[in-house]
Amino acid sequence: MEIPLLVTDFLSRAAALYPEKVAIIDGEQRLTYAEFERRSKRLAQALVHAGVEKGDRVCILSPNSHFFLESFYGVSQIGAVLVPLNYRLVAGDHEYIINHAGVKVLLVDQDYVEMIDAIREALGSVTTWVVAQEDQEAPAGWVNWERWIAGAPDRALPDPGLRETDLVSINYTSGTTARPKGVMLSHRNCYLNAYNLTVHLGVCHDDVALWTLPMFHCNGWGGVYALTGLGATHVVLRSVDAQAIFGLIEGHGVTFACMAPTVLNTILEYSGRDRHTITTRPRFVVAGAPPPAAFIERLEKELGWDFIEIYGLTETSPLLTVTPVDHLTRREDYGRRSRAGIPVTGVALKVCDEQGIPVSQDDRAIGEVCARSNVIFEGYWKQPQATAEALRDGWFHTGDLATWDASGSINIVDRKKDVIISGGENISSPELEAVLYEHPSVLECAVIGVPDARWGETPKALVVRRQGGEASEAELITFCRERLAHFKCPTSVAFLEALPRTATGKLQKFKLREQYWESQSKRVN
Amino acid sequence: MEIPLLVTDFLSRAAALYPEKVAIIDGEQRLTYAEFERRSKRLAQALVHAGVEKGDRVCILSPNSHFFLESFYGVSQIGAVLVPLNYRLVAGDHEYIINHAGVKVLLVDQDYVEMIDAIREALGSVTTWVVAQEDQEAPAGWVNWERWIAGAPDRALPDPGLRETDLVSINYTSGTTARPKGVMLSHRNCYLNAYNLTVHLGVCHDDVALWTLPMFHCNGWGGVYALTGLGATHVVLRSVDAQAIFGLIEGHGVTFACMAPTVLNTILEYSGRDRHTITTRPRFVVAGAPPPAAFIERLEKELGWDFIEIYGLTETSPLLTVTPVDHLTRREDYGRRSRAGIPVTGVALKVCDEQGIPVSQDDRAIGEVCARSNVIFEGYWKQPQATAEALRDGWFHTGDLATWDASGSINIVDRKKDVIISGGENISSPELEAVLYEHPSVLECAVIGVPDARWGETPKALVVRRQGGEASEAELITFCRERLAHFKCPTSVAFLEALPRTATGKLQKFKLREQYWESQSKRVN
Repeated sequence: MEIPLLVTDFLSRAAALYPEKVAIIDGEQRLTYAEFERRSKRLAQALVHAGVEKGDRVCILSPNSHFFLESFYGVSQIGAVLVPLNYRLVAGDHEYIINHAGVKVLLVDQDYVEMIDAIREALGSVTTWVVAQEDQEAPAGWVNWERWIAGAPDRALPDPGLRETDLVSINYTSGTTARPKGVMLSHRNCYLNAYNLTVHLGVCHDDVALWTLPMFHCNGWGGVYALTGLGATHVVLRSVDAQAIFGLIEGHGVTFACMAPTVLNTILEYSGRDRHTITTRPRFVVAGAPPPAAFIERLEKELGWDFIEIYGLTETSPLLTVTPVDHLTRREDYGRRSRAGIPVTGVALKVCDEQGIPVSQDDRAIGEVCARSNVIFEGYWKQPQATAEALRDGWFHTGDLATWDASGSINIVDRKKDVIISGGENISSPELEAVLYEHPSVLECAVIGVPDARWGETPKALVVRRQGGEASEAELITFCRERLAHFKCPTSVAFLEALPRTATGKLQKFKLREQYWESQSKRVN
Repeated sequence: MEIPLLVTDFLSRAAALYPEKVAIIDGEQRLTYAEFERRSKRLAQALVHAGVEKGDRVCILSPNSHFFLESFYGVSQIGAVLVPLNYRLVAGDHEYIINHAGVKVLLVDQDYVEMIDAIREALGSVTTWVVAQEDQEAPAGWVNWERWIAGAPDRALPDPGLRETDLVSINYTSGTTARPKGVMLSHRNCYLNAYNLTVHLGVCHDDVALWTLPMFHCNGWGGVYALTGLGATHVVLRSVDAQAIFGLIEGHGVTFACMAPTVLNTILEYSGRDRHTITTRPRFVVAGAPPPAAFIERLEKELGWDFIEIYGLTETSPLLTVTPVDHLTRREDYGRRSRAGIPVTGVALKVCDEQGIPVSQDDRAIGEVCARSNVIFEGYWKQPQATAEALRDGWFHTGDLATWDASGSINIVDRKKDVIISGGENISSPELEAVLYEHPSVLECAVIGVPDARWGETPKALVVRRQGGEASEAELITFCRERLAHFKCPTSVAFLEALPRTATGKLQKFKLREQYWESQSKRVN
């Protein structure tokens, strides 16, 4: 018997089996699974009433909220496609994405109404403007979410006749220099990723998950589906704030959270932790740049919590690899545990050269990470050329550079476009950054390549010092040279107030490089 | 990107990531994952050399062994179909199955060579006769497994171009009165079942799994795939023996085992347990007839191990339901924990009447369990009519009768053909048996319906007394009447030396009923 693998099954299961259990805690609000399902269905009915049909795009622009969680299931169950917007983008980006995706209905948190109103005239495809807020008067030109769903006829929903390869969402990548690209994720992609999240991160019914990750970011890595399917509890965090995080962990017995490394840093740096009594042992799952081993050690030793590193991209739903504590990886081997790790079930990986030939598994040779799996996206929306570049020879080319060892464990050394090539040697900036983070004065850092007459490029460290941290340029360079091959070490250090990051916490190294390369004719010497 | 979900991926992953880890412990033998993969590939090469092509059937008749585990992967990777035989069947059954399936190659444990030789002339489709034994002289007409695979050319295997709906195996049901039926399971069936096993039974890399379940039985419920995919260790048990079980748990640090209730009983009754020092806390997963609550309590309190009840059939790959300890089920609620439980992810269930309409979720109304899922089989091999009866209106009809409660938890009350109907009332024999098991004299029991002039049928208890147990018929009837509605209670008791069971430990009630119904024109009054 073949039944399409549809992500809507996850909410149906929880609502049938655990109708009275608390599904969502959002501020003072508590929604049970029955209410979560009922509200998602009312949203679906309102969308149908507004003329949304199978395949139509519905946009949501919102911080984490119960509305956001409802939008996933409300939109999917009628076969429409969710386009979650990154709320840290500027109005021009939103305009581009909404028009590029041809969005019919906009679901917008009240804090972003003004921003959308400023570009409203340019959004020709949008027919319905819904503001996510409690039951109150909507601004002019908008309809209040609660009144909108209350006003929709309570009629049986049309069966969209979905296949598992139909789209769940188009997730626009946060983008750096180029225009954002729309990553098309299917039900099959998301369903199998949810299984992998459950299997490899030990997601279970008893989990209380804190949403430290923005929900727009690759559908919360699949947590929207995996946690729901097992009837776990979602605790909404609207914006990252250390005190709020500790308060919610303490207050709701949080056991699980996914986050970018920068959030982990925020947590480690929080000075008020002694005011909280935390009795759970949350699993903190981190992706993005590999965190320095020192972060892991501090999380586990100082806080007594568990750390798991994963690796993936929006294009991969996202889970590709994980580093479990297993017979090859001791708990105390923090260096190894900061690696991207080994492929999860159903994922084939290779680290290969430009010709697609695997590089040596000696953990020294650098190649591009390529993946083959059912979690790989269906292509970029309306960008056949970009799709063909990314998906070629049967493999997805991630653009991430890595080494791998004999056990198949992957270590991301850089984005392909961020690697430093100095005198013909590849230098991994994360490796250098990990060493710098061991220095007590270093709060945040980034290493980039800057022009050098002799070597082409040379590494430069950009450092945000901790309050009271006094380390000088010379001291930091010496610190690195005592710990790393000299050719890898920074030849200069600059001190900054803060580092530029994307909405998901990735360093925007291109912005840092900008000033050093302005006068150069090309970006890499 | 769509890649077929193929069960062969599970071994490929483990062999790539954990080549040096012990995959299989079989007596004195230890096979690493690299060896497991290499031997499976050699088997595949030998099969190809013997003329086996995609879709051809290969039979294995063997107790649990490393050969058996190898046969799953060796056969699947060339797209052939494994037919695992139940070694407790008689020669006539084997003859029927081998011919019905049109088997080309026979893989037979040395203990079963004689039995097959007796029917050899009747097995017209078989071209190759392989005996599973260490490297030694094979009996006449047979080739030794080791020499056979050693003699095959070490050539690249043909790519069978498998789709996920292609068959992994044809598993003949153990059968009662009718001829065994061949359950066709596809890669997709088995792959998704393996995910469910992992998710709902918490299978992990660190598991050391004891094969108390016969591997022929529904491919070891998917343990062949799930445990392998995560790189757990298989500990082979050739035949059920309490001392061996305790010795292996002690010696190898077993953490996980699946079994029929009868094996659980064997373990609980083992008098030598104090001679073993067991430091792990194994999870014992039980399916088949719901075990009496008393079994669960004894396992958890006396032995300190964990119990999990599941429910499923060969036709369902098999996992349909599980009873987790969750916010609705306290650990100490042994009655509830002996229920079949709630559907796993990706499984829709209903308990319905003859018209397919769900019966009331009041845990009293009895109906047939029907399921809709990707783990439901593809049909019975060459039996379109039986297939059409089982798979109709989009649902698989299990033939099991159950009640369900408001939370969707299922309680199996009987096989449809075993239910006792007395004076128009349905009586669940397992409910009665559970009460009888609470009596200290009762070692084993079965309740059947026997003819009754007034009520049509009336319940009769067949009891095997514990050594020294002296309870009389009258005492046991009174014991039941103190605990159950009187109409449900047995009106007579007979004492037996043993109960007839199938190979997988299911009671063969039809054999017990036989003698009481011989003189009757129909089986149910």
